[in-house]
Amino acid sequence: MRVLGVDPGLTRCGIGVVDGAIGRPLGLVAAGVVRTAADTELPARLLGIEQGMEAWLDEHRPDAVAVERVFAQHNVSTVMGTAQASAIAITCAARRGLPVALHTPSEIKAAVTGSGRAEKSQVQHMVARLLNLDAAPRPADAADAVALAICHIWRGGAQDRVARAQQEFARKVEMARRARG
Amino acid sequence: MRVLGVDPGLTRCGIGVVDGAIGRPLGLVAAGVVRTAADTELPARLLGIEQGMEAWLDEHRPDAVAVERVFAQHNVSTVMGTAQASAIAITCAARRGLPVALHTPSEIKAAVTGSGRAEKSQVQHMVARLLNLDAAPRPADAADAVALAICHIWRGGAQDRVARAQQEFARKVEMARRARG
Repeated sequence: MRVLGVDPGLTRCGIGVVDGAIGRPLGLVAAGVVRTAADTELPARLLGIEQGMEAWLDEHRPDAVAVERVFAQHNVSTVMGTAQASAIAITCAARRGLPVALHTPSEIKAAVTGSGRAEKSQVQHMVARLLNLDAAPRPADAADAVALAICHIWRGGAQDRVARAQQEFARKVEMARRARG
Repeated sequence: MRVLGVDPGLTRCGIGVVDGAIGRPLGLVAAGVVRTAADTELPARLLGIEQGMEAWLDEHRPDAVAVERVFAQHNVSTVMGTAQASAIAITCAARRGLPVALHTPSEIKAAVTGSGRAEKSQVQHMVARLLNLDAAPRPADAADAVALAICHIWRGGAQDRVARAQQEFARKVEMARRARG
């Protein structure tokens, strides 16, 4: 399973692509940022994020996209831009029919460090260790996006297994109903 | 000049299309809303807004798009969805190369009523009067989008005249420079 994680932002939109499955080693495919200039008008910045996101999706063909969930109460000065960048990333993925999942910062921290209140440095340390790298990808936004992709592989995988089990159960119930009918 | 105004929202995204120019009568072309169901997942809702916006742009071919500027401090419970819907509307317009302007709620109120602190009902009353209608378009989100389009025709037109005058001045300076050189 290949997951593209997005740590949304107008100035630096972190992107991380990870291959993996539960119980298998994780592999870093690519990490980086889509940047837009702070002195550019908002329409051009959003268009730049859309074009950057499309290029990443074209190049890496992920099976799923995970985007960090944005909350209104966090950092009021940048939250609007973050929400707008996340909308663009989500829509680019949805337009291609890719499943899109939102994970909260504490879910991401808990997935990679075991604690939802871990420090940034601890998350970066674990990202490097889990991917068998000497250091976490740079800049920090790229590392955060990689952590999000890992979180999705582990959580999303579990959610997928539950969904498949439910589908299987429903199928058996339906078969039993037809056999009786 | 045909302006498409957008009052962004996830549940009801108001849209109003107005023809007009400074010193000429205004004409309402169309008004309505793009709706998405509150019980739908965010990716599908954003995609629905994108598709709705594309349909309005295809049908009415505006010369410019005006979107209400969203502030973080307003109504924290819905502001994230509003910011995300606005990002989609802005990007749809920017992708077509259309000029996109953002106007604040008080700029809109001041444009149509003369007061930046006018009541909603006063804005609706003036929208109906300015467009020579018996009543303002419904629902309220559609009327707000129409008010925004009117605001843009009056304010944007003035901004365009200033920009044209500046270009003309720069052109004359350049011609004078060449004539001397």
